[in-house]
Amino acid sequence: MTSIDLNADLGESYGAWTLGDDRSMLELVTSANVACGFHAGDPSGLLATVRQAAAHRVSIGAQVSYPDLRGFGRRALDLPPADLMADVVYQLGALQGLATASGTRVAYLKPHGALYNRVVHDELQAAAVVEAVLAVDATLPIVGLPDSEIGRLAEAEGLRFVPEAFADRGYRSDGSLVPRSEAGAVLHDPDEIGERMLRLAAEGVITAVDGTELPLSAETICVHGDTPGAVRIARTVRDALEASGLTVAPFAVR
Amino acid sequence: MTSIDLNADLGESYGAWTLGDDRSMLELVTSANVACGFHAGDPSGLLATVRQAAAHRVSIGAQVSYPDLRGFGRRALDLPPADLMADVVYQLGALQGLATASGTRVAYLKPHGALYNRVVHDELQAAAVVEAVLAVDATLPIVGLPDSEIGRLAEAEGLRFVPEAFADRGYRSDGSLVPRSEAGAVLHDPDEIGERMLRLAAEGVITAVDGTELPLSAETICVHGDTPGAVRIARTVRDALEASGLTVAPFAVR
Amino acid sequence: MTSIDLNADLGESYGAWTLGDDRSMLELVTSANVACGFHAGDPSGLLATVRQAAAHRVSIGAQVSYPDLRGFGRRALDLPPADLMADVVYQLGALQGLATASGTRVAYLKPHGALYNRVVHDELQAAAVVEAVLAVDATLPIVGLPDSEIGRLAEAEGLRFVPEAFADRGYRSDGSLVPRSEAGAVLHDPDEIGERMLRLAAEGVITAVDGTELPLSAETICVHGDTPGAVRIARTVRDALEASGLTVAPFAVR
Amino acid sequence: MTSIDLNADLGESYGAWTLGDDRSMLELVTSANVACGFHAGDPSGLLATVRQAAAHRVSIGAQVSYPDLRGFGRRALDLPPADLMADVVYQLGALQGLATASGTRVAYLKPHGALYNRVVHDELQAAAVVEAVLAVDATLPIVGLPDSEIGRLAEAEGLRFVPEAFADRGYRSDGSLVPRSEAGAVLHDPDEIGERMLRLAAEGVITAVDGTELPLSAETICVHGDTPGAVRIARTVRDALEASGLTVAPFAVR
Repeated sequence: MTSIDLNADLGESYGAWTLGDDRSMLELVTSANVACGFHAGDPSGLLATVRQAAAHRVSIGAQVSYPDLRGFGRRALDLPPADLMADVVYQLGALQGLATASGTRVAYLKPHGALYNRVVHDELQAAAVVEAVLAVDATLPIVGLPDSEIGRLAEAEGLRFVPEAFADRGYRSDGSLVPRSEAGAVLHDPDEIGERMLRLAAEGVITAVDGTELPLSAETICVHGDTPGAVRIARTVRDALEASGLTVAPFAVR
Repeated sequence: MTSIDLNADLGESYGAWTLGDDRSMLELVTSANVACGFHAGDPSGLLATVRQAAAHRVSIGAQVSYPDLRGFGRRALDLPPADLMADVVYQLGALQGLATASGTRVAYLKPHGALYNRVVHDELQAAAVVEAVLAVDATLPIVGLPDSEIGRLAEAEGLRFVPEAFADRGYRSDGSLVPRSEAGAVLHDPDEIGERMLRLAAEGVITAVDGTELPLSAETICVHGDTPGAVRIARTVRDALEASGLTVAPFAVR
Repeated sequence: MTSIDLNADLGESYGAWTLGDDRSMLELVTSANVACGFHAGDPSGLLATVRQAAAHRVSIGAQVSYPDLRGFGRRALDLPPADLMADVVYQLGALQGLATASGTRVAYLKPHGALYNRVVHDELQAAAVVEAVLAVDATLPIVGLPDSEIGRLAEAEGLRFVPEAFADRGYRSDGSLVPRSEAGAVLHDPDEIGERMLRLAAEGVITAVDGTELPLSAETICVHGDTPGAVRIARTVRDALEASGLTVAPFAVR
Repeated sequence: MTSIDLNADLGESYGAWTLGDDRSMLELVTSANVACGFHAGDPSGLLATVRQAAAHRVSIGAQVSYPDLRGFGRRALDLPPADLMADVVYQLGALQGLATASGTRVAYLKPHGALYNRVVHDELQAAAVVEAVLAVDATLPIVGLPDSEIGRLAEAEGLRFVPEAFADRGYRSDGSLVPRSEAGAVLHDPDEIGERMLRLAAEGVITAVDGTELPLSAETICVHGDTPGAVRIARTVRDALEASGLTVAPFAVR
């Protein structure tokens, strides 16, 4: 691997409420997972984020979610698959409209929050997301966790699936993330994070929380944009990757 | 004029709540103003409506609205133009996504409710709607009231504007609708409505509430889909038009 | 038992959308489970329902729900208990405000839809609902399924718990409802329903779907208000109960 | 006047989004205008704010709004009076529920944002707010602009009306606020603001933007809680008032 992508969640403000530092993150990432209004993002705020992303030549992804502004899309919802499929189509279409109005396009799709976690193992909901992408634009890659139900289903349907690693999260030896309720779930030291990501990109290996050397294939690395220190971590990761000779570039054509 | 379009508002159910008889109306109209989720219409319900419209070869329009489920988009909202522009882009994009997923496309745009009335005279809000259409797809016609601010602005920007008449509404001699609070606002007799629309289509004239013969240019006739007797009125209007030798056909290419 | 209560879900319209026939049901039931705006019911519609219920001397209950207008509160939501507790307090308080403004009061609480089913077995969510009632008004009874987690917790905390039977639902021999996806889930014959409820009220027994005679203790019977034939079923049940000499009366003091 | 109240808008976060520094402001103000969920504030966040206010012995007011999370209640909405009345009852009741659950009570009502401005001159909407307070608790004072429609109507109906001044806003010689689009609308210098408020409290006079000495009767002073420097301004105002021998205390009994 000579090239790696950096992605972050952007466009997550809503009305009078601001979240994250989109402008700074757009200097650092190569892919922007833009909210679509169901967990965050109002149309005029999203339009501004899409325009900024286009100006920075950052690839734009549709970060689709359960309908849950109150819970920021982090609460699992038992959505019938047909409703989920239509919800994803609606959100993807809405962001495509905003992208067209900004002279750019949506280049990929990434589920958000509780939906992201659900489609790792829930075949029906994973299939609904895949069906939505197929129905709207079968050239769009889907970003998700390696070795997931949605990954298998996407590839079985001929879609490109882009496996993702999380820069600041601890891993268990089976490749799953350490739950936030346990020790080692979240890393905070920018230098340690930078080194881990460099090794991941260069060797395809990450050290799990129990010390196991875990092979992990990732074409894109997710850095958070909404935590204290987020910008510094993103910068450290990017610098480490570039210093090693890797190219940081979008996996998806803008 | 040898051809006229019949349009109706469809897709206005929401979740467990049903409104209107979409299936029956789709047998009668040639253009469906499909809600976009802001005043009515959830994604899976809208997807079903769009699929049915496509199956009936009925032209699909995006019926954009203020964000107001509670008030069904009928309450005027002082929306900054930049927010309105983005809201329209978002809704239009969302319906385009649902149309693409149904193998069809959005063929025109029509503002709904309080927004429809506002853009007759409010230059800033009218310009915001026009700007949204230009930014997403400048080939889309806009449907609205003849002699309106939005009509003038749309044509000034090179968009096609399609003037509309209302089958069951009374007109004043200046071409405005009789307010719902006044006598003569709404007509109920299907035969009388059929005759009025036939004369409008054939001669471009309608009798105002004060007896004046009012010249009125309309390329599409709006029949309501959500009132008692709606289906019967729509059928009578269509029969009257066809009996006179007029072709009832979409103004917009599907 | 010489007295039994009849309850139904009311106030479930929203904005332009009407659901159920509240006026007819208020002639027949003795307790009205009034929506609180989270799954249905806008403030002005709820105020009208509360006023009508007061005029009919029907007892008013707060039918609290997950926040889910789109899914009518029928979709399970993984709500943290502290959030659920506050959501219940908010809804209960809002309905109390509407009741006070109508010269009446809220007399009990009943969870709705997916929340109703969840608190049968989910101890954390059941405890959150109980905590909310304790915090606002510890004299309010809670209505729910017999032999449920919420029933046990309510009584352990000193609240009155009112077990409920469903007039038109089939039961399994363990006292649970036949899932809607299986045969025998819903009964449609008003006479059969009336006889079952009469026997339940008189003898405390209902025939399960497999023929078992199931002892069932219920102080209130739920009749649906939103299905075709709802009013006729409610009338048949009420007539059967009264013909046998039972008094149909609210379990809760208005 | 030997006593004056300081109020601020609190509880204006929503879900994942934080706004303002409630904890610091609660050290400084004597009345908290707590959002009710229509322009800001989710139930669990509001419950936390109400508990903190009670712990600080700060008086709690219901800050009712148009339903407009997206626009933070700042966009005028043409709400029919009956709907507005019910919306206010619903919000007031909801906050009363949260207050009861916190061992305290709602002590007054203050309209928010666009509704605040509207009821200065719109008789129908002002009457709807007054009617809502009368219907729920006629002992609650209403806070608003001196010489306003809502003030006159409230007092005509026997309610207490509490006139308010804004610490950091410029006034025109007719007592109205300088619109935010004009120079002098917002003051930023804490010392200047402190001196103005001291003179207002001591002499009942404020200097208008054109130099006129404007008599202004105010029983409570609003300090903003959501701007940079808000906490410092609030502290300076409070210190100036107390240094002059005035007592800073709630106008309403908690």
